[in-house]
Amino acid sequence: MGEQPYTEPIGALSLTLDATFFALSDPKRRGILERLGRGPATLSQLAEPSGLTLNGIKKHVGILELAGLVETEKVGRVRECRLGPATTLGEAGEWIEAHRRAWEGRLDRFERFVERAR
Amino acid sequence: MGEQPYTEPIGALSLTLDATFFALSDPKRRGILERLGRGPATLSQLAEPSGLTLNGIKKHVGILELAGLVETEKVGRVRECRLGPATTLGEAGEWIEAHRRAWEGRLDRFERFVERAR
Repeated sequence: MGEQPYTEPIGALSLTLDATFFALSDPKRRGILERLGRGPATLSQLAEPSGLTLNGIKKHVGILELAGLVETEKVGRVRECRLGPATTLGEAGEWIEAHRRAWEGRLDRFERFVERAR
Repeated sequence: MGEQPYTEPIGALSLTLDATFFALSDPKRRGILERLGRGPATLSQLAEPSGLTLNGIKKHVGILELAGLVETEKVGRVRECRLGPATTLGEAGEWIEAHRRAWEGRLDRFERFVERAR
């Protein structure tokens, strides 16, 4: 008997999850989101306290922007950054929550099985 | 006035979040977690329906194992894989949930500000 395929359907949600989880996998990028949670900031304002160069910040902001977590806008001579819509973060949170519940359900069943076996 | 530093404290939680979010950023790895949610499987059982080679599966399982999302055990001549403790997934979920709430709080305040400004 062959194993049932388990691959995720490829689609917009799958690509959003890829980009969001990847964007969240770096402490500098999570730091940028924390900072923008306190209000918008220019690229230079993000760079100054981070210990990163302006180019380093640009790279990280670009990855956050691809995931929809950050939006940027050219205002005069500077680029202002702010948090994007919360939907991307919501979808990543829903994926984790659904799996955490399934996971804990499994562990519960396993514990009950061990209890009964005693 | 200098900007307040926004970097995340480096520590065990930060490293766990890095590893967990990175592990979740690939649809094949999310698929392996879905599959293991239905019960333990050997590396070959994971490889067969995935379209990946055994080496490809080993690499992905290794990344999931580093994050604590999967545990493996050599049983005779095969390596059996199962879901790890749910704690890592819980910590990633808590990070997202805390930030989603802060995020939505900000958007609410902004909407009220726009309402008042009208």
